[in-house]
Amino acid sequence: MWKAAVFVFLLLKVDMQVNEAEANNNIPASDTASSGFLGNLLVVPMDGSHWVGIKAIAQEMGRRGHRVTVVIPEISMRMGPGKHYDTVTYPVPYDKAHIDSIMSSLKDMMEKSSFTEKIRKGFSKMQKFTGFMHTTAESLLFNVSLISHLAQQNFDAVLTDPVAPTGSLIARKLGIPTINLLRGLPCSLDMKSAGCPSPPSYVPRFLTRYTDKMSFQERAFNTLVALLEPLLCRLLYWHFDQIAYQFLGEEVGIAEVLSESAIWLLRLDFTLEFPRPIMPNVVLVGGINCNVRHPLPEVRSWVSGEHGFVVFTLGTMLSDLPEETTSVFLEAFRQIPQKVIWRYTGQVPDSFPENVKLMNWVPQNDLLAHPGARAFITHAGSHGLFEGLCHAVPMVMMPFGGDQPDNAVRLASRGAGVVLDIYSITTESLLQGLNEVINDTRYKENMQKLSALHKDRPVDPLDLSVYWTEFVMRHKGAKHLRPAVLDLNWLQYYCLDVIAVLASVVLFFVILIVKCLKLCFWKLSRKRKQD
Amino acid sequence: MWKAAVFVFLLLKVDMQVNEAEANNNIPASDTASSGFLGNLLVVPMDGSHWVGIKAIAQEMGRRGHRVTVVIPEISMRMGPGKHYDTVTYPVPYDKAHIDSIMSSLKDMMEKSSFTEKIRKGFSKMQKFTGFMHTTAESLLFNVSLISHLAQQNFDAVLTDPVAPTGSLIARKLGIPTINLLRGLPCSLDMKSAGCPSPPSYVPRFLTRYTDKMSFQERAFNTLVALLEPLLCRLLYWHFDQIAYQFLGEEVGIAEVLSESAIWLLRLDFTLEFPRPIMPNVVLVGGINCNVRHPLPEVRSWVSGEHGFVVFTLGTMLSDLPEETTSVFLEAFRQIPQKVIWRYTGQVPDSFPENVKLMNWVPQNDLLAHPGARAFITHAGSHGLFEGLCHAVPMVMMPFGGDQPDNAVRLASRGAGVVLDIYSITTESLLQGLNEVINDTRYKENMQKLSALHKDRPVDPLDLSVYWTEFVMRHKGAKHLRPAVLDLNWLQYYCLDVIAVLASVVLFFVILIVKCLKLCFWKLSRKRKQD
Repeated sequence: MWKAAVFVFLLLKVDMQVNEAEANNNIPASDTASSGFLGNLLVVPMDGSHWVGIKAIAQEMGRRGHRVTVVIPEISMRMGPGKHYDTVTYPVPYDKAHIDSIMSSLKDMMEKSSFTEKIRKGFSKMQKFTGFMHTTAESLLFNVSLISHLAQQNFDAVLTDPVAPTGSLIARKLGIPTINLLRGLPCSLDMKSAGCPSPPSYVPRFLTRYTDKMSFQERAFNTLVALLEPLLCRLLYWHFDQIAYQFLGEEVGIAEVLSESAIWLLRLDFTLEFPRPIMPNVVLVGGINCNVRHPLPEVRSWVSGEHGFVVFTLGTMLSDLPEETTSVFLEAFRQIPQKVIWRYTGQVPDSFPENVKLMNWVPQNDLLAHPGARAFITHAGSHGLFEGLCHAVPMVMMPFGGDQPDNAVRLASRGAGVVLDIYSITTESLLQGLNEVINDTRYKENMQKLSALHKDRPVDPLDLSVYWTEFVMRHKGAKHLRPAVLDLNWLQYYCLDVIAVLASVVLFFVILIVKCLKLCFWKLSRKRKQD
Repeated sequence: MWKAAVFVFLLLKVDMQVNEAEANNNIPASDTASSGFLGNLLVVPMDGSHWVGIKAIAQEMGRRGHRVTVVIPEISMRMGPGKHYDTVTYPVPYDKAHIDSIMSSLKDMMEKSSFTEKIRKGFSKMQKFTGFMHTTAESLLFNVSLISHLAQQNFDAVLTDPVAPTGSLIARKLGIPTINLLRGLPCSLDMKSAGCPSPPSYVPRFLTRYTDKMSFQERAFNTLVALLEPLLCRLLYWHFDQIAYQFLGEEVGIAEVLSESAIWLLRLDFTLEFPRPIMPNVVLVGGINCNVRHPLPEVRSWVSGEHGFVVFTLGTMLSDLPEETTSVFLEAFRQIPQKVIWRYTGQVPDSFPENVKLMNWVPQNDLLAHPGARAFITHAGSHGLFEGLCHAVPMVMMPFGGDQPDNAVRLASRGAGVVLDIYSITTESLLQGLNEVINDTRYKENMQKLSALHKDRPVDPLDLSVYWTEFVMRHKGAKHLRPAVLDLNWLQYYCLDVIAVLASVVLFFVILIVKCLKLCFWKLSRKRKQD
């Protein structure tokens, strides 16, 4: 139960499981801007792993000759300058130590403590984190000189990550169209704002861990969650609604601001995601970081050997574990023939098995791309998941919050990995999980099939992202793709007004007929009596 | 009112507005089959204009090295051999004269006659036409030796046009996946079978001529049409349901057979189509014949001149008009400075204006691509519409049935053309229409904007069609894109069972609370009385 606190804490999905290779995305050479159009793009990114995809697009746009300006806070986790874009920074009222304290929060949650203590810790961290998001947004939006500077730059469009809808608010203020890049918003606000129907009968909701095939009970719970989503949206975006009002000076909520987005680039792919209806302005670009490659000099000798190796990372936020949990992992690794490369930033134990290599940072995507990779122990963050999928490495998944449990279910339901509970992990359960994905060939086969499907797409996801960004810039938006559903209220959308009128008409005629029949019977019976 | 008969007659959309240029599609050189995979494709096409797109894909697939077998009847309108595919023919119990009598049917409908006579004619023609479709299907499906020959060929997939679901039935019999290419099915059976939600509040129904922005009355009517669609489907596909039972030997309807389709290639584009939800296995390839080009030797001198020219075609089925209607057109053309090229196969009038050229066949797409083209008088068939859109020529549209009135509304609602009623056309209304689209620059400007949007796509529609055909062959289907909605009944889909249970629970508690309160009040009041 107390894991709910971790869930909520991670709800906003800044899982930050970036690896450096991703952050230095190696874009293959391709054409310059199509149709000779060169434009002016404003980029308002999110920090952490969210930065990876946005940076890749910004770099490629700049490389194609567009003018690209990225607006970032002076203090940040990952964000920084790049070869092909300009950066504009703004001051923020926090320091690096504050960010580090948020980053290291998950280890605290793993420590053994009472239920109430964990809840208290969870909520305190969540408060700290949302406060951090709001402060960052306010530091940019209420920096009058910066905003007025941006207003003078004649940008053609804004590329942003709407988890913190700062970029969307600036786009509205400046009257320019928005391109969103994201994995998904909690409470399905992305799908709602894009006008995508999400029938709860086969579209599983965030955090439910359901697949698209639900039992009656699951469907009932999923429907309840769907009914509660608007309330969750209000709660999650309540403070941003206030910011929107102050910044724009108009009575408009975040949901309405987001519904004006021109294009939604979703880091999803139907190889993993369950088929669901999408709107024409929603473009799937899951696996945007698949083609990143770097040489492996440091670990090349380490990864050789007949039994191959296991890659073990739990993302940026969980690179250190409580001693007890570390022992569980080491004890399991001692009993397998594979070598293990573990991204670990904690205190190095006095003794650990010879087949284990601890590293402060691992070139995750490059390791997974190596033919010796036998398994991937991961927290099932979306970037890692797509990298494992890209290179067809079966996974042992230990999600601890946010979208991770849902991601894990998606992969496990395809028979390409197993899910373990990191909070109650034992040496035996880990050994069993590793044994399954490494030695039961079905996992590898399923993963290879999935990987082949995932990589078989008409356009590379990064090229597709760049294409639609340029499209919005060329055409000053994508108004022809804006669905009319966004102008309907829910009564009109579900045709409840029409149904009410039609039902009334039917009822009127039924009553009329019944009255007529009664009258006829009454006259008939009176006539009979008279006869 | 009597036009309803023409509507119904054309409901199945064999509008046959082919032009020869399309039929000899000039595919630009491109790569051979991606990933080195070479497969074996069975093609079961439809005749008339429906043949154009299917032939283009078949040709390109063959050119890339796949083995392509096209199954066609011995007697047909347009279908025949091609350079890059093999044909297999089967005997049919009708001759060319029978087909010609169907082809020339629309002129009869244009003749002045009484309302009842027109209805009679309409239904007789419709009967003749559906009979023709069923006979063609039965001639193929119950040709035992041919079907058993096909079964031995180890095809990887079937490419077909499901307006006549012959190909889909063969695919099911042979246990191989299907790729559909179509403009749309009446009664929205395509969207239903693909699992796409079609909310009647903003998805206008076939034949209604509505846009995505409807008044209350329009929404009410649209909802009624949506409610009646299942009945219409039953009526339209009733005979095919019987054929399915006889051919497959199992109790399965056409709707179920179609829902097994791997990929739906729809000849639509959101430049014209109103944004609506689609499923991941629905791919939009409208404008598949846009890049067809041929030289214009015969009419090159004719199309020169400062005022430009007007292209006038009403499709294959209406290349001859009653004398009276012909006079109306000629009188209007006499009064405009533009030259007119009219596809006309009827008796040549004794005298006609010098600026008019009558031709048995016109290279429609090439004429529209000429910079001198000022306007396009068309029946708004989907192929012609996409060609005009491709070359940005504003249109005077005279739809006479099928999807044409809907097509016309889509273009007119974008301010890129005007719609006239061909059945009550006068010289004045035609002149006014031509004057508007030629001299009011807004039409040309709107058309140019639309055209730019239409042509701005990441992948050429023909390449995209070939890509997904190859995809299905490579992966033996596209099962990962099959939506779970196809396994739900309508009670489950709308969660009516869940709602009923939830409502019952709420009702139970409401009753319980009311009873408790009543009991409390009763006890309280009794106590007071006792006091």
